[in-house]
Amino acid sequence: MADLLDDLRSALPDGAVLTDPDLLRGHQRDEADLCAYGMPAVVVRPRTTEQVAAVVKIAAAHGVPVVPQGARTGLAGAANAVDGAIVLSTAALNRILEVDAVNRIAVVQPGVINSAIAAEVAKHGLRYPPDPGSWESSTIGGNVATNAGGMCCVKYGVTSEYVLGLEVVLATGEVLRTGRRTAKGVAGYDLTRLFVGSEGTLGVITEITLGLRPAAEASLTMVALFPSTAAAGAAVAAISAGGLSPSLLEFLDQTHLIAIETHRPMGLRTDAKALLLAASDTGPRAAADLARIAALCEEAGADEVYAATDAVEAAALLQARRLAHPAMEQYAAESFPTGNGGLIIDDVAVPRSALAALLDGTEKIAAEHGVAIGVVGHAGDGNMHPNIVVDRADPASVASCRRAFDDIVSLTLSLGGTCTGEHGVGLLKREWLAREIGPVGVRVHQAIKAALDPDTLFNPGKVL
Amino acid sequence: MADLLDDLRSALPDGAVLTDPDLLRGHQRDEADLCAYGMPAVVVRPRTTEQVAAVVKIAAAHGVPVVPQGARTGLAGAANAVDGAIVLSTAALNRILEVDAVNRIAVVQPGVINSAIAAEVAKHGLRYPPDPGSWESSTIGGNVATNAGGMCCVKYGVTSEYVLGLEVVLATGEVLRTGRRTAKGVAGYDLTRLFVGSEGTLGVITEITLGLRPAAEASLTMVALFPSTAAAGAAVAAISAGGLSPSLLEFLDQTHLIAIETHRPMGLRTDAKALLLAASDTGPRAAADLARIAALCEEAGADEVYAATDAVEAAALLQARRLAHPAMEQYAAESFPTGNGGLIIDDVAVPRSALAALLDGTEKIAAEHGVAIGVVGHAGDGNMHPNIVVDRADPASVASCRRAFDDIVSLTLSLGGTCTGEHGVGLLKREWLAREIGPVGVRVHQAIKAALDPDTLFNPGKVL
Repeated sequence: MADLLDDLRSALPDGAVLTDPDLLRGHQRDEADLCAYGMPAVVVRPRTTEQVAAVVKIAAAHGVPVVPQGARTGLAGAANAVDGAIVLSTAALNRILEVDAVNRIAVVQPGVINSAIAAEVAKHGLRYPPDPGSWESSTIGGNVATNAGGMCCVKYGVTSEYVLGLEVVLATGEVLRTGRRTAKGVAGYDLTRLFVGSEGTLGVITEITLGLRPAAEASLTMVALFPSTAAAGAAVAAISAGGLSPSLLEFLDQTHLIAIETHRPMGLRTDAKALLLAASDTGPRAAADLARIAALCEEAGADEVYAATDAVEAAALLQARRLAHPAMEQYAAESFPTGNGGLIIDDVAVPRSALAALLDGTEKIAAEHGVAIGVVGHAGDGNMHPNIVVDRADPASVASCRRAFDDIVSLTLSLGGTCTGEHGVGLLKREWLAREIGPVGVRVHQAIKAALDPDTLFNPGKVL
Repeated sequence: MADLLDDLRSALPDGAVLTDPDLLRGHQRDEADLCAYGMPAVVVRPRTTEQVAAVVKIAAAHGVPVVPQGARTGLAGAANAVDGAIVLSTAALNRILEVDAVNRIAVVQPGVINSAIAAEVAKHGLRYPPDPGSWESSTIGGNVATNAGGMCCVKYGVTSEYVLGLEVVLATGEVLRTGRRTAKGVAGYDLTRLFVGSEGTLGVITEITLGLRPAAEASLTMVALFPSTAAAGAAVAAISAGGLSPSLLEFLDQTHLIAIETHRPMGLRTDAKALLLAASDTGPRAAADLARIAALCEEAGADEVYAATDAVEAAALLQARRLAHPAMEQYAAESFPTGNGGLIIDDVAVPRSALAALLDGTEKIAAEHGVAIGVVGHAGDGNMHPNIVVDRADPASVASCRRAFDDIVSLTLSLGGTCTGEHGVGLLKREWLAREIGPVGVRVHQAIKAALDPDTLFNPGKVL
């Protein structure tokens, strides 16, 4: 132990090896519920790729696992520490190294905050679209490690579609470069994509080459209110079948509408069972596209449809959607007088045609287990977050919520869906991953893990 | 050998085990030049996944390699037979299993021709964008195995962006399912992407789930003619830097213009040093977008810019571009009175900012080695095909062309590019792949190959 710390201190600059107990406790876990976490031996904050490689080599020599951590905003426990581990924080790997406007590329270190990249590339008339809910606090390294999603993904795709190349420190301490700076390229296996979404289990990402887009166009925004969640689900299927490509298509159920109005009154109708928030950024056609979406919502049973009258109202509606998570946290906290109320956040995705069935089934599951479940999500992708209200101090409540959680994932798989649409597997869904991909899929995962990290140095216990 | 054939015949239906020598010769190679090929022991045409699995198990039991083959339109030798191998043809795995318009998905077997998928999904108002030059003859399995590109990629991306999931027969004979039918999903490692572009070296793809797009909109088309290739390259960089997203941005040099006019006179100006063909499908904004592209071309030095007056003229221009390959083949054949003239087709990609330097450098390389090189390609992606005219009967010509070929790839890497933009590595560029990805990259490739195919059953000698 002393040896380990000595070796780390001699390899890293002053202040980069942290053992203060309060600080160690602060690095034990991400924001996931229901996930175990341990006490790390040390937190390191390397500033360069070479320092990361040195840490990995020292860890390997001492047989001590390495847990990479960004901002710990994850929701599946993938960044949770294990006892005695080296937590490798990317906090000091926080530079934007390059923005190349001609080639629409940015090269960044993993510790840069998502919104900082968006702001920097906007200066060059460019856009980095992926916008997870945590975009103002999460790091690009964490986004890449979990293949983060967000609200823009319905039209602009998830993180992986923007990662052109990576620099990764392997378990050997060697530095691997994957991918390219060109728009196209098919040289060899797609190692870039193998590392994206691998949740820190295959290597430590130390540099990311991002492909960018031209700046977004102004969008128009509308709202549709429904008398049932199933009607909202049917509207989403009709919009998809109608060949429309909204730039935003978000779902909020009544529980979330109430939670948001309680958290910050914004004039949302809390008597509606569901709300769809849609936007179109197709320029001169946006109004016509929104009109078609509005008509499809009405055909599906919406009892009120209205457009945002201006950009201020549109921004307020988007802000209401962004408040769903903190509002629901407050709602959960206030649901139990004990003060132990909280939220178990689920993340599932189904084919869009199955969205109504998922929403219907989730209501039934809530009733069956006697728990409150609010649902919010990226309707256009079929990606829903059923948020389960739990009394953490009450084992019976936790048990009921866990059963509801499992039933929702089980329902999702039976609908042809996936156990995680954007949050990842981490610790939270290892069993569900195994069920989803089956024994052959598990064996292939294990074979790849063994090929790249035979001694399970990186993030042990996660994903697999 | 008799044992092998007996085992295959008992596992496959009548007519699926082929040993006719002419037929074996017809399955020796794809369309790549400079690549070795052998004589297979047998060609099999399984009709089901179970039959593919049976073939793989028999091959493993006999220690005989399996070379998967689609339509053999590849340009890197990835489908070339090795002596004594089982060539596994996907010709009888040729069904479109499902088109789901609500979820914008098609499920297909690997032997379906690209254009047949495009035609079928069009009936549902949907589009499968990737359009390699071979789209009317190449199979989707081959497109997936090589991660094929095409002309639409500048705006709509390459094959991999449309592959949601795969069914793959592994070296064990087990059947792996990867990916999903949902718009989003992050469950586990991205095995789908690992198999896409792996050129038949990791498994046999037996089913493909494709994500589709709404039908394309009508586009407007324009032409710009330049007094130098470098000016055309500069125009491409300016278009990219200007935030424009043309739906087509193709380059033809003077050699190709002459070849096309010789092959089929279409009224192209053969005195121009380079032509850019651009299109925009942004609906009501397309004319304005094309006007901006035209202005940027003029600023870069174009001496003539004109728009197609109608869809017929636009289609003729596109047809001229599609004729570049056969026209250049004819040009090459007629370049030598021996009748042994042919084409060595290269495929490189550079950052768009380096396109002018690549074009300039290629001209210098041609002069230096005394060979004729025509360049055509997907300018908007920086993906060029320098086509080298060779006299196959003349060893000195072959040697000069090989040196020019290598010099072009070397130049590409020095410009921050990749040794293959869309054709793949196959046999043609194994050494160049190794140089591009370096020893760490090669070791990771080998580790993954060994994890999935430890006995090198699949497509030995390709890629690595």
